[in-house]
Amino acid sequence: MLGRVRTAVAQLVGGLGPAARPHACRGPPVGGGFSRPAFLQLTSEELQLADDHAGRAVQSPRESRRRLPWSTGYAEVINAGKSQHNEDQACCEVVVVDRRCSPRCNPDLCFHYWGLFDGHAGSGAAVMASKLLHLHICDQLRDLVDILQDSSPPPLCLPGIARELPAEQNRAPLAQADAELPSDALPRFHLEKAVSHESLVIGAIENAFKRMDEQIERERMTRLVAGGCCALAVVYLLGKVYVANAGDSRAIIIRNGEIIPMSREFTPETERQRLQFLGFLRPELLGNEFTHLEFPRRIQHKELGKKMLYRDQNMNGWAYKRIEEDDLKFPLIYGEGKKARVMATIGVTRGLGDHDLKVYNSNIHIKPFLSCVPEVRVYDLTQYEHCPDDVLVLGTDGLWDVTNDREVADVVKEVLMDYEPNDPCRYTVAAYELVVRSRGVLKERGWRLPNDKLGSGDDISVFVIPLGGPGNYT
Amino acid sequence: MLGRVRTAVAQLVGGLGPAARPHACRGPPVGGGFSRPAFLQLTSEELQLADDHAGRAVQSPRESRRRLPWSTGYAEVINAGKSQHNEDQACCEVVVVDRRCSPRCNPDLCFHYWGLFDGHAGSGAAVMASKLLHLHICDQLRDLVDILQDSSPPPLCLPGIARELPAEQNRAPLAQADAELPSDALPRFHLEKAVSHESLVIGAIENAFKRMDEQIERERMTRLVAGGCCALAVVYLLGKVYVANAGDSRAIIIRNGEIIPMSREFTPETERQRLQFLGFLRPELLGNEFTHLEFPRRIQHKELGKKMLYRDQNMNGWAYKRIEEDDLKFPLIYGEGKKARVMATIGVTRGLGDHDLKVYNSNIHIKPFLSCVPEVRVYDLTQYEHCPDDVLVLGTDGLWDVTNDREVADVVKEVLMDYEPNDPCRYTVAAYELVVRSRGVLKERGWRLPNDKLGSGDDISVFVIPLGGPGNYT
Repeated sequence: MLGRVRTAVAQLVGGLGPAARPHACRGPPVGGGFSRPAFLQLTSEELQLADDHAGRAVQSPRESRRRLPWSTGYAEVINAGKSQHNEDQACCEVVVVDRRCSPRCNPDLCFHYWGLFDGHAGSGAAVMASKLLHLHICDQLRDLVDILQDSSPPPLCLPGIARELPAEQNRAPLAQADAELPSDALPRFHLEKAVSHESLVIGAIENAFKRMDEQIERERMTRLVAGGCCALAVVYLLGKVYVANAGDSRAIIIRNGEIIPMSREFTPETERQRLQFLGFLRPELLGNEFTHLEFPRRIQHKELGKKMLYRDQNMNGWAYKRIEEDDLKFPLIYGEGKKARVMATIGVTRGLGDHDLKVYNSNIHIKPFLSCVPEVRVYDLTQYEHCPDDVLVLGTDGLWDVTNDREVADVVKEVLMDYEPNDPCRYTVAAYELVVRSRGVLKERGWRLPNDKLGSGDDISVFVIPLGGPGNYT
Repeated sequence: MLGRVRTAVAQLVGGLGPAARPHACRGPPVGGGFSRPAFLQLTSEELQLADDHAGRAVQSPRESRRRLPWSTGYAEVINAGKSQHNEDQACCEVVVVDRRCSPRCNPDLCFHYWGLFDGHAGSGAAVMASKLLHLHICDQLRDLVDILQDSSPPPLCLPGIARELPAEQNRAPLAQADAELPSDALPRFHLEKAVSHESLVIGAIENAFKRMDEQIERERMTRLVAGGCCALAVVYLLGKVYVANAGDSRAIIIRNGEIIPMSREFTPETERQRLQFLGFLRPELLGNEFTHLEFPRRIQHKELGKKMLYRDQNMNGWAYKRIEEDDLKFPLIYGEGKKARVMATIGVTRGLGDHDLKVYNSNIHIKPFLSCVPEVRVYDLTQYEHCPDDVLVLGTDGLWDVTNDREVADVVKEVLMDYEPNDPCRYTVAAYELVVRSRGVLKERGWRLPNDKLGSGDDISVFVIPLGGPGNYT
């Protein structure tokens, strides 16, 4: 059935214009060499510096070069040696949506876009997604250009290309019954559900993530796309900010000092029940290695017959069960906090790529348990008068692992206070400062924060996006 | 695998003491005749009055009879004719948990219990659950009597009855690899997860709901248990209030005028994605009648080939898809608000019973899509000094359909103000008033609220439980 839906929605895409064409990114394989976001405009010397684990120099757009839309601030730093290159990637673009074919009855549509991609097991998926995800979003929006600019509710049904209609008698029996029964014999079948413009944009973003993931699957061999990535994407369209998150990056709005969470993290712990439910319904996906039950520690063989705490896909609490042979298998979800893993392998449960990921030393695929679909949250920019200190902060987990929401808000406030409200470089300084403070300073015992705790040894990437009004900056 | 888990947990139950034995409720079939909650102590004349759809007299415990624990207030009224009898049921008990077998090293454990059951398609399941669910909770707590009263963390593993151990070589390959590999070759496998006392009580309540549902399944023929029911149960144990909800009843705490939601409703709309996910993974459960996709209205045969808005199990937004033959099937989830249905049949997605429920005129079972597992929320009574006006209100949907949280809080405040804080009858008057105001008054055009809107034609049942401290009342 998935296949069927895929086909149907793929048909919708139809012929793509060249501008907003996800496949337009040709040339050398995108996943091959080391690269940093295009908007950083790094020289080859600067690129080398950015790739140095020992120095961990923080990178930001230079003031002398092209300014990012809305004077967005950005900064990044490479990890302390956990992977060869910086596996984070970023993108910031203004994208014009060209109509697919309908007659022109409204102005063109354009959206602002920011994306953060935190790669794992290679940077290929992150690089590819950073170059293409916004084009998939554009593609999904192409049918909606006029619908979104029309104040009347979206049409539930659109004309399509005629097909040969099968005979009426092929209809499912209930559908026939529905037509034959008096209108009150079954519940009201003939209602219409109102669908908002906003939910069309959400649907477009959700499907863009799916298409991106499918493209990675198709082209991973030819483009040498290794690994997977978390994806956090922000779309500003027609007065609203859409924050789409698949993974463990995070977005918060800081408004008048108040923190508004704009995403949640998808990890083995937060998605335990979804994953256990799948393992329960499709035990073949667990190989003969894993049990869908969770236990608070590994069970030893000699404990057979004793009672152990467990929880299944339906439970939030814990209860005791008698240990059986099957319980000696490794738990599908195991570990706590940053060490929680799906099938002892991966610590995030949503993202793009990972099509070849398998359990160590086995033929068990992890991908069926991962979701590429983001959760999308919406923030209406027009509902509030924003001041220049109100910002949306996006960060990969390298930031949030050592700096919590409140601390991030405090650093942002502190930096912005030092600059004139109309100084466009203040957001870059804020991003820079967030990265420096999360990385820490190199001491004898590694990278350390002022309180002597370990700084983040991970890649760190941060956007600081002012909400003070696109009118001011674009 | 479900079978295996069931067996294992059933074994845990072992020999039941007679006091807290869910099966101790013998005698005539509980689902047969019409009955009202035992604590109402209705005479046969009063029972007849309570069963009269025309008068819809509100029933409350008489002041002259046994007072409910904590001076709990209660009131109920029968529906306006939608079913032959009042299909709501209620229970209020103090339950002593007897140990299963362990040596006595702590005082006995007892819990206070309130349950509301909103039956559908017959009152059998509601009656049976109202008589037995608290005994299942008691049974699940019997292993925990000493563990819950011990300040140290619960043991992860308990001794059990020895069994013949299978040979080591039967272990799953990864479990072997785990034993053989150096400790840093795989992620840290040897951690221990801390499990709280609170989560053991949650687990006990969750499993009690499952056992109750299994008992209804086993005994529905012999006991003539018809239909199903929503279940809302409250357990007060060791200073904490556990509110367990499976269905569309609702619980709120009103504290110093502030409303604290203590449950959420489980309906086709709120559980859409869980149900669609199941329909997607197990299409055979949909017969050949239903599609797991949602559409905002029925699709007509002549629309084949056009594009229609849809959403699948992964989407919160909507997008257009080309209509295919399969999309002509009836949507698994269809309708809005109170009219939303699973497979055109049922408007709640969690509860007990319904084992024989099928789609109209078909052999398609609904039960696989329903969950008997409640969501449990915890409120720590010791964390706040409660005044006599602070209450927990439980109501079936008959209450909440016409009276929102704020209105309920206002009515409660208004009534309680009229009575001395130590007058125990004030909570019953509040419950009575909530029922009267939701039922309305019989006029020419049916039961009407003061604003002339329709009152609730449904059964209405309400508990008003004072939080002013069990010490004051028990």
